[in-house]
Amino acid sequence: MQSTHLREHNLSTILRAVVSSPSPLSRAALAKQTRLTKPTVSKLVEELIGAHLIQEDAPVRSGAGRPMVPLLPAMDTLAAIGIEVAADHVVCLAVDLAGRTLSRRTEYVSVTSATTEDAISCCARLMDQARGEVGHLPIAGVVAAIPGRIAPDGDHVLSAPNLGWDRVPFVSLLREHPALADLSVRAQNDNRLSVLTELDQRPGESFIYIRGYTGVGGAVVIDGELLDGVHGWAGEFGHTVVQPGGDRCLCGRRGCLEAYISYHSLRERAGLGDDVLIDDLIDALARSGDRAEVIGTIGRSLGLAVANAMNVLDVSTVVLSGYLAPIAEEISPVVRETVDRHALAAEAGPITLERSDDLEDPALRGAARAALQPVLSAPGRWIERAARSHMDA
Amino acid sequence: MQSTHLREHNLSTILRAVVSSPSPLSRAALAKQTRLTKPTVSKLVEELIGAHLIQEDAPVRSGAGRPMVPLLPAMDTLAAIGIEVAADHVVCLAVDLAGRTLSRRTEYVSVTSATTEDAISCCARLMDQARGEVGHLPIAGVVAAIPGRIAPDGDHVLSAPNLGWDRVPFVSLLREHPALADLSVRAQNDNRLSVLTELDQRPGESFIYIRGYTGVGGAVVIDGELLDGVHGWAGEFGHTVVQPGGDRCLCGRRGCLEAYISYHSLRERAGLGDDVLIDDLIDALARSGDRAEVIGTIGRSLGLAVANAMNVLDVSTVVLSGYLAPIAEEISPVVRETVDRHALAAEAGPITLERSDDLEDPALRGAARAALQPVLSAPGRWIERAARSHMDA
Repeated sequence: MQSTHLREHNLSTILRAVVSSPSPLSRAALAKQTRLTKPTVSKLVEELIGAHLIQEDAPVRSGAGRPMVPLLPAMDTLAAIGIEVAADHVVCLAVDLAGRTLSRRTEYVSVTSATTEDAISCCARLMDQARGEVGHLPIAGVVAAIPGRIAPDGDHVLSAPNLGWDRVPFVSLLREHPALADLSVRAQNDNRLSVLTELDQRPGESFIYIRGYTGVGGAVVIDGELLDGVHGWAGEFGHTVVQPGGDRCLCGRRGCLEAYISYHSLRERAGLGDDVLIDDLIDALARSGDRAEVIGTIGRSLGLAVANAMNVLDVSTVVLSGYLAPIAEEISPVVRETVDRHALAAEAGPITLERSDDLEDPALRGAARAALQPVLSAPGRWIERAARSHMDA
Repeated sequence: MQSTHLREHNLSTILRAVVSSPSPLSRAALAKQTRLTKPTVSKLVEELIGAHLIQEDAPVRSGAGRPMVPLLPAMDTLAAIGIEVAADHVVCLAVDLAGRTLSRRTEYVSVTSATTEDAISCCARLMDQARGEVGHLPIAGVVAAIPGRIAPDGDHVLSAPNLGWDRVPFVSLLREHPALADLSVRAQNDNRLSVLTELDQRPGESFIYIRGYTGVGGAVVIDGELLDGVHGWAGEFGHTVVQPGGDRCLCGRRGCLEAYISYHSLRERAGLGDDVLIDDLIDALARSGDRAEVIGTIGRSLGLAVANAMNVLDVSTVVLSGYLAPIAEEISPVVRETVDRHALAAEAGPITLERSDDLEDPALRGAARAALQPVLSAPGRWIERAARSHMDA
């Protein structure tokens, strides 16, 4: 038992190292990085190659020694499906272990005005199409990015005000579609999925990640690890109060940060539709043609929420993402001024305010990446399962 | 090298287990708890007994087997000194490894109106007296509990508004007293020291700890571990903003929780002196003789800061300490109402609001306990040092 455990742990360590490495690793580099012995690494790598989870690239000769064989995550051997449910569209992405896109489809649908059943049928349809497009590849898992609070079981959406969802048994409803009955599906908060790519780029760092989207959410990262919290809801900066008794938020509460700076609230204020760019939205809100006032309101509210979070967490770095990324430079002076005025961390030196180098669709990419987890965390079990289904076939 | 490391680690694991156990452990129980083999435990326990860090209690016979020999932390073999600097007094406590009080002395002095040098001379005098009273015992360390932000080096107090201190080189100033030149002294935040006893009582739990004292501070505990933050300042709830642009805080900022509910601010509002009890203070503030209004103000401000912290951390338990403990029951309904209105965690079920079972002087006790750390974390080094000084003697 102990040794099965250890083997699984070591297989996982090696597979994760290969998948997350920015450049291909040799067996020797893997041994160094994972602190496993070279013979152990060689044995486990052979096993992962045999199971089509790792592949060898062409040997590279440098100097007089033996050529180095670069190891890569296997391409086109399995699929993981991410799906993102937003207020005005649903998008589905299938990737392989190397993160390459195998399939991607979007349906534009007003989730807020559709029935829950119709919205979930749309998800099911897209997932079914994705599955058709990846052909015979085994599916590692499916993760849905939802802008709301998810029950710790990953099945129920407790509340997603920006979708108009309240207590929706998301996974059960999906399972009612016969074609999907055999898939393992989990729902996760969209912002917590968005931060996953940021984690790769900032190994070991501590930072607050705030993402402006239809709503405002985020994540707390401490020493490179995502803070989960008791229910998996840590980092809900959007519902910290920046004005007691203030404006009504879509969530029903008063004075939330989200009520002042979310895309939804800015659009409502401007009386504009869904598809306006943040830049045009700010121009539309600037009555006298002066953007500074609008930027000031956004920056001060955001700065206050950031300062409060900093005083609780003692973190000095903030990463702005989503619609906040393109205006990060413009709002930074106001945010910084407010943070300096209230955050104790500013006594120790300047805080760092950065914009996320968001890939397109970080929540969707994060969902697909999270859907790979069953393979990454337990490759041994995945290999056994694959062997069994091969025998069945 | 590796084996010295491992030996130190194992010695520390055993010593910590003996010191923190609520009831005496046998060697067999220690082996089970630490997952070390019985022979390893026996060998290390002998070493710790030989070094006067552990002592055996009288054997206990139960049933037919061999009698069980209970192990206890050694008494009267070394001393650790904690000192607490408050606005109106300085108090010094020496304990042994078993946590028993060896010496305790208080000087009433208005630290806020004294010069920094005089206040620190008072600290030096008390430490010197404590050292005299513990006689020949070696001193493990000295930790000073300061109500303020301490630089990460543990030497400088960056700001302690409630003492009127700003950038005070606390440890250097202490070292100028020749009698103390050989002692290892560190300054730590008083609230973070206060929470240490709470940690023992809530192993593995996640909670927010808020302590009302001259100011308002606290700590964040996640899965039984104290969150440090980048500078060791996590948990500064007292300076999160509950009223933007609101009352001026003693720290110079505006709208801090501390400006509304600290002992200092309540006393200022009532125009009362230093030594008023919280109960009398609230009565004095209740103009029409109705405490509800005063309790309401405290509860709503506190509730807002708690709700904001909960949304960032996703923690459902709050422990109230200091002057907030005796009024915890009275303020709970208002705090809970405000938290329920703003904290997402309330969607998942009722939050837990508890009062700390504070020992008398939790910050002082915590400081003495923290002063034992050099022995607890590196018993091997301590043993070597003791052997060397024995040879020198």
